[in-house]
Amino acid sequence: MKLRAPYLIYFGDVADAAHAKTGLGLIQWRREQCAGQMRAPGCRVDGGIREMCIDDAAEAGVKSLLIGVAPSGGSISAAWIADLAAAARAGLDIVSGMHARLSSFPEIAAAARQSGVRLIDVRTPPKNIPVGTGEKRSGKRLLTVGSDCAVGKKYTALSIEKEMRARGWAADFRATGQTGIMIAGSGIAIDSVVADFLSGAAEMLSPSAPANHWDVIEGQGSLFHPSFAGVSLGLLHGSQPDALVLCHDPTREFLLGMESPQRFSLVPPRENIELCLALARRVNKNARFVGVSLNTSSLSESERAKLYDQYAEETGLPVADPIRDGVGPFIDRLETEQGE
Amino acid sequence: MKLRAPYLIYFGDVADAAHAKTGLGLIQWRREQCAGQMRAPGCRVDGGIREMCIDDAAEAGVKSLLIGVAPSGGSISAAWIADLAAAARAGLDIVSGMHARLSSFPEIAAAARQSGVRLIDVRTPPKNIPVGTGEKRSGKRLLTVGSDCAVGKKYTALSIEKEMRARGWAADFRATGQTGIMIAGSGIAIDSVVADFLSGAAEMLSPSAPANHWDVIEGQGSLFHPSFAGVSLGLLHGSQPDALVLCHDPTREFLLGMESPQRFSLVPPRENIELCLALARRVNKNARFVGVSLNTSSLSESERAKLYDQYAEETGLPVADPIRDGVGPFIDRLETEQGE
Repeated sequence: MKLRAPYLIYFGDVADAAHAKTGLGLIQWRREQCAGQMRAPGCRVDGGIREMCIDDAAEAGVKSLLIGVAPSGGSISAAWIADLAAAARAGLDIVSGMHARLSSFPEIAAAARQSGVRLIDVRTPPKNIPVGTGEKRSGKRLLTVGSDCAVGKKYTALSIEKEMRARGWAADFRATGQTGIMIAGSGIAIDSVVADFLSGAAEMLSPSAPANHWDVIEGQGSLFHPSFAGVSLGLLHGSQPDALVLCHDPTREFLLGMESPQRFSLVPPRENIELCLALARRVNKNARFVGVSLNTSSLSESERAKLYDQYAEETGLPVADPIRDGVGPFIDRLETEQGE
Repeated sequence: MKLRAPYLIYFGDVADAAHAKTGLGLIQWRREQCAGQMRAPGCRVDGGIREMCIDDAAEAGVKSLLIGVAPSGGSISAAWIADLAAAARAGLDIVSGMHARLSSFPEIAAAARQSGVRLIDVRTPPKNIPVGTGEKRSGKRLLTVGSDCAVGKKYTALSIEKEMRARGWAADFRATGQTGIMIAGSGIAIDSVVADFLSGAAEMLSPSAPANHWDVIEGQGSLFHPSFAGVSLGLLHGSQPDALVLCHDPTREFLLGMESPQRFSLVPPRENIELCLALARRVNKNARFVGVSLNTSSLSESERAKLYDQYAEETGLPVADPIRDGVGPFIDRLETEQGE
């Protein structure tokens, strides 16, 4: 599955940026592939790119409409159906990260059949995933891991891809969640894979590559998350990472959305790193961490400086907030190691 | 999903005991629910119970035909179709642990529709599995874990259920694989669950129970298995085990079926136990091991004695081979702890 650019980003009638993360992320990370945006009456989000109706898009050579909105519940709003069907009729592939399947809407399915376009549900994994083998693949791999969900694993991985490319390295972001897949244009929604094939899916996602090539793999969940740790471990084993970056929110005390009736504290970076390496070394003896990625947006300068010192001392690793500092320190670390 | 006893065990034309493990296991562990066996010409396996044709079974009040054979590839042999359809027409539920769906065979599907019986594929997980919550449940849980696949996790769990019941404890075996599910009459094929719902499935499998009740949960795979560790961790987290038993084959050097091109050594018991506890304590602070279960069938008496001493010293735990010694030592350990 490979998405066809250029894209029309569909925002529908979304009311706020929090629910338009997918579309805004696409524009942020793949601006050059986004030909325009389409907004319905009532839409309060603006991606800052050219406004297009479906006819404009077809005329401009747009190949796919990407649904850039993720309402709570993951459903496709009835208000979008006519637009999506019109886009399909106009020859655009329709790409969705929702739980509901595009083909389950008769009007959209009929339009796609008629014009021969693809309806792509990026959450649906490929059918031919093998059982993992643990077999060593060529090329290098970096995996972002976390102390919780929503601690910047995707953002950090995308930042690392960008920094590596800026330094002239061969690097590809490998997506494991629906927004990441839309940004990358391909990938596997790892949490939708049947459990038996978890590590096999991760192996498929980052195949053998030239010796100096880096796959930068988007992590999922956390080894310490009682809902999703199995996904995290299957992804860790299948990724066989040479390098890892830990993503952490220093202001978060408990796992997100798990506060009641039972709370789970976020595990401190050092404990997280040690357990993660104990597991990763089963498939790659050289696995090591090269950085701690923090979200410090809510902290003052002095609080931030103190935290950086604390984590650097605790872990012996470079510490950075990718939004404020970039991820240069992590890549410097990799360069230093390679120079040794 | 709950199977209806009594059962007719179907051996078809199976050539050897290794491929008839499911049926033989059913007769071994649930003899009282097995009314008879049915064997086709060429069958070379004998479960030692009453021989029945389908008419006999219907007359004797048999409620379900269980396919007791597992050919390599997990497919349903064309030679069985007529028998299975006849059994369905005679009013028996048909129960299969194969990969192929029973309903995908038109003759069987038509027979089942006609007589209103159920076609049960035990590998198919229920549709309503929630995401795991990590919420503490009442009752006690024991999980068998392993250093590899096929090291006695199911056998050990079934032996523990039997021993606990013999001592008057309230205990239920909880099945996570197809043979276990047939033996238990219910359960969830955990490796067939969509990854996002792994720990949720394990939580569903062993619901809240009276304080002194033990769920004895069949483990799957190994945390050190590059193909299946994600499944093992999801099951570990969702099970929230109070007690664990490590299953190990002391004569096996490498993971089964993973010898080429890359081999993976079996991890020594102590290392396995430590990592397992580090992960289990995220969901149950009181998790601890109560025994090491060995397969020693190929060893001499003196080799066995030496090994028991070695593992007992290494782990500080009771060591037993459930086939030779039973699992009394593990339950003694639980009793001693409870007495303290």
